[in-house]
Amino acid sequence: VSVTEKQLVRLVRQKLDLAGATGRALIGPGDDAACLPAVVNRVLLFTVDVQTEGVHFDQRWTPPFLIGARSLLVSISDVFAMGGRPNYCLCSLGVPQTTTAETVDEFYDGLILQAKRFGVGVVGGNFALSQRFSATVAVLGTAPGTRTVARSGARPGDAIYVTGTLGGAAAALRSLKQGRLGRTEVEALCEALRQGEATGKPTPNDPVLSLLARFFLPQLRSDEAVWLAGERIPTAMIDISDGIASDLRHICEASGVGAVVEVDKVPLFDTMPQDISLGQQELTMLALAGGEDYELLFTVGPERSGKLVGDFQRRGFCRITRIGRIVDQSQGVVFTDTSGRKLSGLDGFDHMAEQGLGEAGQ
Amino acid sequence: VSVTEKQLVRLVRQKLDLAGATGRALIGPGDDAACLPAVVNRVLLFTVDVQTEGVHFDQRWTPPFLIGARSLLVSISDVFAMGGRPNYCLCSLGVPQTTTAETVDEFYDGLILQAKRFGVGVVGGNFALSQRFSATVAVLGTAPGTRTVARSGARPGDAIYVTGTLGGAAAALRSLKQGRLGRTEVEALCEALRQGEATGKPTPNDPVLSLLARFFLPQLRSDEAVWLAGERIPTAMIDISDGIASDLRHICEASGVGAVVEVDKVPLFDTMPQDISLGQQELTMLALAGGEDYELLFTVGPERSGKLVGDFQRRGFCRITRIGRIVDQSQGVVFTDTSGRKLSGLDGFDHMAEQGLGEAGQ
Repeated sequence: VSVTEKQLVRLVRQKLDLAGATGRALIGPGDDAACLPAVVNRVLLFTVDVQTEGVHFDQRWTPPFLIGARSLLVSISDVFAMGGRPNYCLCSLGVPQTTTAETVDEFYDGLILQAKRFGVGVVGGNFALSQRFSATVAVLGTAPGTRTVARSGARPGDAIYVTGTLGGAAAALRSLKQGRLGRTEVEALCEALRQGEATGKPTPNDPVLSLLARFFLPQLRSDEAVWLAGERIPTAMIDISDGIASDLRHICEASGVGAVVEVDKVPLFDTMPQDISLGQQELTMLALAGGEDYELLFTVGPERSGKLVGDFQRRGFCRITRIGRIVDQSQGVVFTDTSGRKLSGLDGFDHMAEQGLGEAGQ
Repeated sequence: VSVTEKQLVRLVRQKLDLAGATGRALIGPGDDAACLPAVVNRVLLFTVDVQTEGVHFDQRWTPPFLIGARSLLVSISDVFAMGGRPNYCLCSLGVPQTTTAETVDEFYDGLILQAKRFGVGVVGGNFALSQRFSATVAVLGTAPGTRTVARSGARPGDAIYVTGTLGGAAAALRSLKQGRLGRTEVEALCEALRQGEATGKPTPNDPVLSLLARFFLPQLRSDEAVWLAGERIPTAMIDISDGIASDLRHICEASGVGAVVEVDKVPLFDTMPQDISLGQQELTMLALAGGEDYELLFTVGPERSGKLVGDFQRRGFCRITRIGRIVDQSQGVVFTDTSGRKLSGLDGFDHMAEQGLGEAGQ
């Protein structure tokens, strides 16, 4: 690559700033979704994401049904990460000449199932010939008044939280790439998902299916995100698509702060199938840098942090874990062990995250 | 191709209908843009379009500046064709590994120039690795209250109008593909465009540049479209991306009507450079089936049709031409000569339109 994506993203963001090209947007490029001023106490959230064959999935082991499901989920995830709710989407499909009607049919089955589950109207789209299968999903959402959560509000002293567990999605992806899991298991996930259509969730009892679901069907923390934003609890929030190492850096850059993460506190995916022998260190690495989990990463000021875990439990929300704290920008973004010793050799995080997926939002 | 695009479009539309997956959309898949209910007398218009290397342009003769400009223009064209105004867009770029920063820089120069010209905020987007360069632009627009114009309102007895002239864009594209025009001329257009930045228009005095501009910088009839919709004049409206033959059929299918077009009345691009020797018949064919002109095609009831040409002149709007009339569905879509004789051998229109561009909106 003659230029890194990071450079391209920065270049475009600067150009848009300089040209004043983001119109009246309240939040333009640089956050999970663009935040647009609107009428009657509601702002619009407008975002786009793309999934490409060979980059985000491999058709050898990914049925179109799951490509469709995942394309929708990762796109609307950005709206939830702002504290809004997705309302509509458009899907632009790049299709190779060899694409069959069945493929498109199954793709939309998966997309529609998830769209209905989250109340998202699929309101249009198009097709274009393409060498590789790709799905670009644009999403329009809303949030009440000023209740959106940007990446830019974190302040020194804030606690850093994550929802759920991390590393499962990247472990699933690695297992597929290494051939330890394959089309057979993925088809079983499809089948389970089709059977559990009402909830949109597969039966969670099979550990292999649960692992695969972590990648193909990211468990969006929709109610949690909307509640957090409604209560104005997070100072910054993002969904973890690239891994904590990379996504926390996005928050820190946008907020002009640093961060200290206690690696041992990071909640790891804990129902790994026995066949998938994965060392604790490897899983930690995947949790930090593997990405694809689409859990929420958010920061909370000291005055709101105290009873947050209790609040989540009381409401039947997912598990949350405090993994570190925001510090002054001069301290950078640091990963430590329990004794507070700075861990070295973790500089590869970003690089790994960049290699893993050739994509980055502006 | 193992399945035609038309089949795919129909398949998806039916699926979405059956699944009730278009949410509360006022107009979902099947029109130029999705029309969404909103707050305070304004509906939202939300659409997406894609331009792909090798399908819509050829990088050998297309500078990134013009790819960016055209990507924006053809996307917002759909919003104008509904009678709305575009407000925001997102751009999802597929970039090959060999893509340079300069390419992206120039692409966004072109996109931003046109976005500013039309008051469109560029509010986000992303990059994904791709074998071919492609640009997917999602657009959000608004229209006052119920003043949008769908494809579905044409009624027998309505007159059929087009704006401007047709065939120029396809003639430019053909000249480029045949090598009669090339990178040198296109670079000159870029240069003229950069110099005329204030208006976003190149100096129109050079016939070669004017021809190329027809393809690269579709002359959107924005004020005309908004005025027409505001006055509730059109019963149906569409922008001509695939050619009259194909786009009129879209109106007829959506409206459940037929149409008679007098081919001799179709206004042809009339400032063809002398070097580009193009027979009248060939130009007519391009005007009907070549597409890419992005002029408006609309239908008007008899009670509003009378003084329309005069209204346009008085307001300093573009030229409009009445080219035919809407008839009963049983009569089909027919092209006739001046004496009313049905022209044969024109069945290839659709096929040609389909070959020309591997793309179709839902």
